[in-house]
Amino acid sequence: MQVSLSAIKRIENAAKKIDGSVSLAQGTPSFSSNPIIQSKVIKAIKKGWVDRYSSVAGLLELRTLICRKLAHRGMFYDPETEIIVTAGVIESLSATLISLIDPRKEVIILTPAYPYYPRIIKMARARPIQVPLSEKDGWSLNVDLLESKIGKNTQAILLCNPNNPTGTVLGKKTLLEITGLAERYNLTLICDDVYEDFYWKEGKLFSLCTIRKYKNRVIRLMSLSKNYALSGWRIGYLAGPENLVKKILVTHDNLVNCAPVVSQYAALAALENEKEILPANLKEYSLRRQLMGRYLEGLKGRIQFSWPDGGYYFFPKVVGVTDTEKFCFKVLNKVGLAVVPGKEFGLGGEGHIRLCCGRSREDISSGMLRLKKYLDSN
Amino acid sequence: MQVSLSAIKRIENAAKKIDGSVSLAQGTPSFSSNPIIQSKVIKAIKKGWVDRYSSVAGLLELRTLICRKLAHRGMFYDPETEIIVTAGVIESLSATLISLIDPRKEVIILTPAYPYYPRIIKMARARPIQVPLSEKDGWSLNVDLLESKIGKNTQAILLCNPNNPTGTVLGKKTLLEITGLAERYNLTLICDDVYEDFYWKEGKLFSLCTIRKYKNRVIRLMSLSKNYALSGWRIGYLAGPENLVKKILVTHDNLVNCAPVVSQYAALAALENEKEILPANLKEYSLRRQLMGRYLEGLKGRIQFSWPDGGYYFFPKVVGVTDTEKFCFKVLNKVGLAVVPGKEFGLGGEGHIRLCCGRSREDISSGMLRLKKYLDSN
Repeated sequence: MQVSLSAIKRIENAAKKIDGSVSLAQGTPSFSSNPIIQSKVIKAIKKGWVDRYSSVAGLLELRTLICRKLAHRGMFYDPETEIIVTAGVIESLSATLISLIDPRKEVIILTPAYPYYPRIIKMARARPIQVPLSEKDGWSLNVDLLESKIGKNTQAILLCNPNNPTGTVLGKKTLLEITGLAERYNLTLICDDVYEDFYWKEGKLFSLCTIRKYKNRVIRLMSLSKNYALSGWRIGYLAGPENLVKKILVTHDNLVNCAPVVSQYAALAALENEKEILPANLKEYSLRRQLMGRYLEGLKGRIQFSWPDGGYYFFPKVVGVTDTEKFCFKVLNKVGLAVVPGKEFGLGGEGHIRLCCGRSREDISSGMLRLKKYLDSN
Repeated sequence: MQVSLSAIKRIENAAKKIDGSVSLAQGTPSFSSNPIIQSKVIKAIKKGWVDRYSSVAGLLELRTLICRKLAHRGMFYDPETEIIVTAGVIESLSATLISLIDPRKEVIILTPAYPYYPRIIKMARARPIQVPLSEKDGWSLNVDLLESKIGKNTQAILLCNPNNPTGTVLGKKTLLEITGLAERYNLTLICDDVYEDFYWKEGKLFSLCTIRKYKNRVIRLMSLSKNYALSGWRIGYLAGPENLVKKILVTHDNLVNCAPVVSQYAALAALENEKEILPANLKEYSLRRQLMGRYLEGLKGRIQFSWPDGGYYFFPKVVGVTDTEKFCFKVLNKVGLAVVPGKEFGLGGEGHIRLCCGRSREDISSGMLRLKKYLDSN
């Protein structure tokens, strides 16, 4: 078992102890929840609807709405048997891995990857296998390299699309190639789609779940933390075929009984009012991405980066820095800015830092000026 | 891995599909949360305090208040390092077992026991070892029998005090004997104290954590679900020595990141206003226990039971019934009453049914009359 928190949490905690520090570390949106969501939740609290357990899978009304939303995107699920409302995507992932992966078996991840992936895979007593993305090709995936890592112990491939921290977006062609491998080697695909709304190119992201014959080996994880600014509420959901969801449901019950009911009402309000809430949030996120990117462009020579196609992070290389953990704590102590060391994200991550552009414009400006100040003086 | 939900959930789900049915199955209080709690939560929502992650261990303000409350009972903990606010006691237990118990090692439980204990122990890839309580001695524990079950693979003893479902209360003498065994065999004691306020005798329950030298091997789990009627909010906490809590914190982070922040504010309001809320709730629970017990006395000859010293369940034996799962589904289908089959609770449980007296007086009366009707006609 691991004995220390992730570097994301360690640096975030260290920052909290420094007066006047600014954090671009943890992926927390700076927004508050939308007043429409607040009103609905307050009504539910006053009516006494949130005090008792919901069914293990969550409020049927919420699961039904989730299925309607998914159907609009061409993904068809049964609310009774194929959806679980969870206490955030971390709980979805824990429940999924504990349920579907056997001890000492392997789960493939594409790195740089969200640090919780290897942590949770190990917690489930399984082994993470890293497949590095190619930085020189804009953090793209080499599917042949991925195939070469599949062995007799491989049980699943875990994808984050768009990827945290690199912003890599896997397109339809690549996803179909990956699915071909999953079919050939009988693997489950676990798709962490929490950043699906954060796509900065034209058009919509492709999802494998829109192809009915592939749906049967895909578990799709979603959260409302980033797009609806509900991270503190711990609310998300997963969708998958009945035979797998049935197993995950038992583990979900063993982990939390049910998602917090008050947060289920927040999710209901969010999804019911998607049109009023989501475009405005995404517009603001897009502006923040522009803002952070322009600051990074001003640091050319000391910082190398590419604009991410998706997600809400930048993952620049700091020229000449080989130990980013040391670098990040120095930055924090000298100029009061918290960013995440790249080593934490696995193969290919060292030498980079992760910056979250979901934070407020003030924090982004202040943080980037602090970074400039640090780089200027070193 | 288990592939079906517990009988508690299966019968509760089945009951929901039968119009006009009454459930005395799941341990859900019928109350709504106190208006004082609701007001505080609504304020926190409007102020935007609940939208972002808290620290992994929970709001420091809440941990500090928890420690102050524990100190009043003679239990001394450091809010910075020895307390974790969790998404309910189930999450506390999962995080504790995953962190502290190695695969294939053993955890002792006293049966009849809460069905989630063996389920979660197995989820953590460990083995539950059952030590049956002695029904003929009022469900008391034979400590010699407990000692005989300790082997080289035993790593922990999991106690529920008062016990769900039998209402057994382990007194100071017994707890000290158990601690003696824990010292001798180097075991961790996991104390699920969620029913500690539900003690129907004179005086206060004894807790091992009041003895400083024993505190170091005890993890104490608490919830606000039953005493404050907050089951749907998924909120609880655990207390233990720093070296163990540090490990559990990492798993807690991997399971849920942090407890739902909105529910942390509910907990804060509950504990701040303990005196206004708790005695009234407990008085009502005591009346409900009396009510249910009197109905059971009226069923003498067909039902054998003892009054529980603690908790909010009755666990009577149904005379002549050997397959309680079959019995319970027959009762549900014939008279629309959901109760839990005793087999689910492990060794010593079969032949009994569990009735929750936390449900409303109306449900208790209606449910007990239905039970009488069923027994009269069979």
